[in-house]
Amino acid sequence: MKSDDIFCKIVAGEIPSYKVYEDNDFFAFLDINPVNPGHTLLIPKEHYKYLFDMPNELYSALWLKAKDLAPAIQRATGAKRIGVVVEGFAVLHVHIHLAPINSPRELDSTNQKPANPEDLAEMTKKIKTEIAAS
Amino acid sequence: MKSDDIFCKIVAGEIPSYKVYEDNDFFAFLDINPVNPGHTLLIPKEHYKYLFDMPNELYSALWLKAKDLAPAIQRATGAKRIGVVVEGFAVLHVHIHLAPINSPRELDSTNQKPANPEDLAEMTKKIKTEIAAS
Repeated sequence: MKSDDIFCKIVAGEIPSYKVYEDNDFFAFLDINPVNPGHTLLIPKEHYKYLFDMPNELYSALWLKAKDLAPAIQRATGAKRIGVVVEGFAVLHVHIHLAPINSPRELDSTNQKPANPEDLAEMTKKIKTEIAAS
Repeated sequence: MKSDDIFCKIVAGEIPSYKVYEDNDFFAFLDINPVNPGHTLLIPKEHYKYLFDMPNELYSALWLKAKDLAPAIQRATGAKRIGVVVEGFAVLHVHIHLAPINSPRELDSTNQKPANPEDLAEMTKKIKTEIAAS
């Protein structure tokens, strides 16, 4: 199900991203408007608009991938935990927000602020290093 | 791993709740401070403090249960979709927020407002009916 949403273009390499992880089925990259540094978006490469419309096998694999990546993001950021949000009105391509958080309400979308490219590049390296060490 | 957190007490029936679903492993009930009517909390009965510390099998079953329940909550509420949040600072017992949403930012915790008991009771019935019809 190819689509022309921005996340499909990111997966295709037509739009650059701060990629931290990629395999045959999934792609993860930094949110450029993080609630906290290290805020990552995990997506299936295949285009689904709505999380709960995904087939069970890919859906389960997606959540297990989130579980694989979360500790690396946590180590890279030193956060107390990795919070999860799936809302999906902005881009109609399933994406799981994996956001480092240290206190209540940090996950709220009102906390999303643009990050600068140098910080994003640095964080990408850190998270990739932690994923490689997993 | 028995604990004395409020969700363990709800599972044990020591504290009443607007229960919409229960099986051997999971329990779902209405959030009494919903972002929108029908805002449901899905929890594992077993006490885990942090989502990503759960064993893979139970973790996957939890997410598949969320996928099972979401359409019923959506039908009961007429919402455009069911959003997902896992934050967990308020109660240290894993809980997935399954919240009916219709537009961006509705998932934010700042939108949580106390609901009245009559509305919660009515919504409990509606969701249970939809789950039974699933």
